[in-house]
Amino acid sequence: MSKTTLYTCLSPALLHLYDVRDSVVVVIDVLRATSTIATALFNGAKSVIPVDSVEKCIRLGRDMECITAGERDGQVAEGLQYGNSSFEYPKEFINGKILVLTTTNGTKLLHMAVANGANEIITGSFLNLSSVCNHLAGINRNVILACAGWKDKVNMEDSLLAGAVVSVIKEKFSMNCDSSQIAECLYESAKADLYEFMKKHDASHYHRLTNFGLEKDIRHCLTPDLANVLPYYINERLVI
Amino acid sequence: MSKTTLYTCLSPALLHLYDVRDSVVVVIDVLRATSTIATALFNGAKSVIPVDSVEKCIRLGRDMECITAGERDGQVAEGLQYGNSSFEYPKEFINGKILVLTTTNGTKLLHMAVANGANEIITGSFLNLSSVCNHLAGINRNVILACAGWKDKVNMEDSLLAGAVVSVIKEKFSMNCDSSQIAECLYESAKADLYEFMKKHDASHYHRLTNFGLEKDIRHCLTPDLANVLPYYINERLVI
Repeated sequence: MSKTTLYTCLSPALLHLYDVRDSVVVVIDVLRATSTIATALFNGAKSVIPVDSVEKCIRLGRDMECITAGERDGQVAEGLQYGNSSFEYPKEFINGKILVLTTTNGTKLLHMAVANGANEIITGSFLNLSSVCNHLAGINRNVILACAGWKDKVNMEDSLLAGAVVSVIKEKFSMNCDSSQIAECLYESAKADLYEFMKKHDASHYHRLTNFGLEKDIRHCLTPDLANVLPYYINERLVI
Repeated sequence: MSKTTLYTCLSPALLHLYDVRDSVVVVIDVLRATSTIATALFNGAKSVIPVDSVEKCIRLGRDMECITAGERDGQVAEGLQYGNSSFEYPKEFINGKILVLTTTNGTKLLHMAVANGANEIITGSFLNLSSVCNHLAGINRNVILACAGWKDKVNMEDSLLAGAVVSVIKEKFSMNCDSSQIAECLYESAKADLYEFMKKHDASHYHRLTNFGLEKDIRHCLTPDLANVLPYYINERLVI
């Protein structure tokens, strides 16, 4: 039996180069959409509904009486109740509730994967790294690690997470993909201390969030398995 | 005086994200267009005319009585005289001649940079690494390192060259660019032996060219400063 394939797509603007219809697509937006999604579901949220506009977020929140949250350019978007930080969604707050979320990059990429007909969509972050790897290693299907980046530019933290996944599961796959190799190499250089690596290399989103005083968020989002669930997309929402 | 900016664009499909009109664009296609360009000019070619189609290459060759060369998918394109290997252009053959060249990725990217109104276009490869770095370090202008990749996918060797340039010139620039950081990190991991790194990580184009028996070409194209000239684009041709 030939091995299934593993690809890394470093930017949403490159997604059309990959055959998502025949693949499990892992949507990766480490800072911070997919970290927030993992945390909310880990802490008992019924579901997370990713939407691609602030307006839709407000409308759904009103119609369904759920929590609206999201950011644009790293800050709480006007008209929404909450932001894009894991710390806003402890168990005592989010348990049993539905969260409607819109973000600059991650939720947009997820909708691109839906529009392109992805066979299956899950979300990945360091917070649920092991769940993602275990799932991918066990399913014998083609995989695309899709990085959200920042406004279509390649970014450091999503590439690092892709590299972390590659390093764990690569033996199970046929991998003819330089982006996966580059991501893994980056992760190998960084893994001893991801936060220090981001800081030392002045990663653009490290810089952006630090300007908002969000170092604690960054550290949290770079810590493996703190919310080790497997969010998957079905019926327009993410559930576990 | 504020520093000028340095960006790396890892794929032609991301070029629209960068302000090429206000920048020097370094077109990078290590395997093998920009290596061939450096070699031909180093060995005395009057100019290299990059064209984006085999048909145009044949027509120009006929009209101007110059040498036609190019490849599609790594092999000599049908109807052209020569391929995309530095070894085809020794001094005794190319000196004083004009070379018309079309390739899968590099010449296409160059024409994209032209169409987008790049302020200045030069070509970079390991063969002319020092010339490129010396030029960029001395001009006090914004720089975009533009990787040709493979059919819009990010590739290993062009990212490595971008990283090599970044490692030399970064102190002269303001660099808020994760792609540049990633490229430099990759280069730092690889620089002890670029060929072995490409082999170990089974870089896609290493794989492709090795299948054609072109290991010698790869080794050559990864060697710094063997054809240390600065090709720049003017009047639809590359000269030094």
